[in-house]
Amino acid sequence: MTEVFFDFLCPYAWRGVELAAVLRGQGEPFRLRFYSLVEGNHPDNAKELNWKLTDQPTDQPTDAEGGEGYMSYQRPSLGAFLAAQAASQQGEEKAWAFTLALYRAHHEQKKELNEDTFVQAARDAGVDLTRWTKDRADETGLRAALRREFDDAREIGVFGTPTFVLPGGEAAYYRFENLTRDPDRARQHWTLFQNVLHSDAGIGTIKRAKNRPPRKQ
Amino acid sequence: MTEVFFDFLCPYAWRGVELAAVLRGQGEPFRLRFYSLVEGNHPDNAKELNWKLTDQPTDQPTDAEGGEGYMSYQRPSLGAFLAAQAASQQGEEKAWAFTLALYRAHHEQKKELNEDTFVQAARDAGVDLTRWTKDRADETGLRAALRREFDDAREIGVFGTPTFVLPGGEAAYYRFENLTRDPDRARQHWTLFQNVLHSDAGIGTIKRAKNRPPRKQ
Repeated sequence: MTEVFFDFLCPYAWRGVELAAVLRGQGEPFRLRFYSLVEGNHPDNAKELNWKLTDQPTDQPTDAEGGEGYMSYQRPSLGAFLAAQAASQQGEEKAWAFTLALYRAHHEQKKELNEDTFVQAARDAGVDLTRWTKDRADETGLRAALRREFDDAREIGVFGTPTFVLPGGEAAYYRFENLTRDPDRARQHWTLFQNVLHSDAGIGTIKRAKNRPPRKQ
Repeated sequence: MTEVFFDFLCPYAWRGVELAAVLRGQGEPFRLRFYSLVEGNHPDNAKELNWKLTDQPTDQPTDAEGGEGYMSYQRPSLGAFLAAQAASQQGEEKAWAFTLALYRAHHEQKKELNEDTFVQAARDAGVDLTRWTKDRADETGLRAALRREFDDAREIGVFGTPTFVLPGGEAAYYRFENLTRDPDRARQHWTLFQNVLHSDAGIGTIKRAKNRPPRKQ
């Protein structure tokens, strides 16, 4: 089974999860995995893991966390992960439905990652709201589940989202601009990525020069 | 014509130039271009260009430049570029022959980038040594030519080597582990790279997770 590591903050991860969802519809198995960009990029974690998203509060931010910095994203990100983890306890289909609903709300409909948006995503995904609310109350359990996800990602060396881990263990970040829900196009984009990882060239990186970004379509 | 930006310091650029040389043998035009990793990664250049390799001396390093830091590579790198620029004044074929000879001396035969190695590479490449020695004496002219190369690279947004710029303007870093001089394999590796840059997914980056490097063959 292929794993896809994502963070709700990231529009590239959104495209990656949509790609995986299309392929899943064609019978290819994918597993949703959480990775925290805020934790991964935190300066205190450059050498070893000192700052954990799973140890942070979810109530209102302090003044020190406000402003433009990425630290202001920690609460929306943690809140989204906790809501998704609770939804995933209703099974794999609900996990996918909630993840796609929340991604589309945030990146397509431009809604903030807040409580109203989480609830609407749960409704849109057909999640049992009574059970979801109850499961969300077990924050200790949800945080422990998130911690296992983030630790797995760290073990693999995930540094950005989306990162796909193929059944053979190959793992790579795959950043692309153009969302597709077309089955044939999705298949082509996925095959190309796999070909890069399986090439006998031993490809480590293909990355555009900064001033020559790929075109949006 | 495809351009390939390289620095003699870099083993990945060596593989890239070898790849280009094989394809060139199949009739595909490539142009050799210089990019300085030391200048590109220099902390003084993070915001704007303040430190230029082309302004540095080529005589013995000071104590401050010694040791393990990458700054200790500035003189070998500059010396190699100046020697290659002088060789290139004898035409495109000599430029390729010198570049390959110096790369192989440094990365295959593990020789240091120093005067002895430059002279041996010039001999191996069939460079006219009398003319080369005379051309090397015009250091002002050679440095001006290098400067144009580095400024072009900066304009394109090159950040590492090898970076290939396709005839359509697409530019990307292409890092792979396995050197090939086999024509069919080289063609496959090149086609795959082009497919990534031309994909309608608008791929910006494919990069392995840190703890899952590609296998050396």
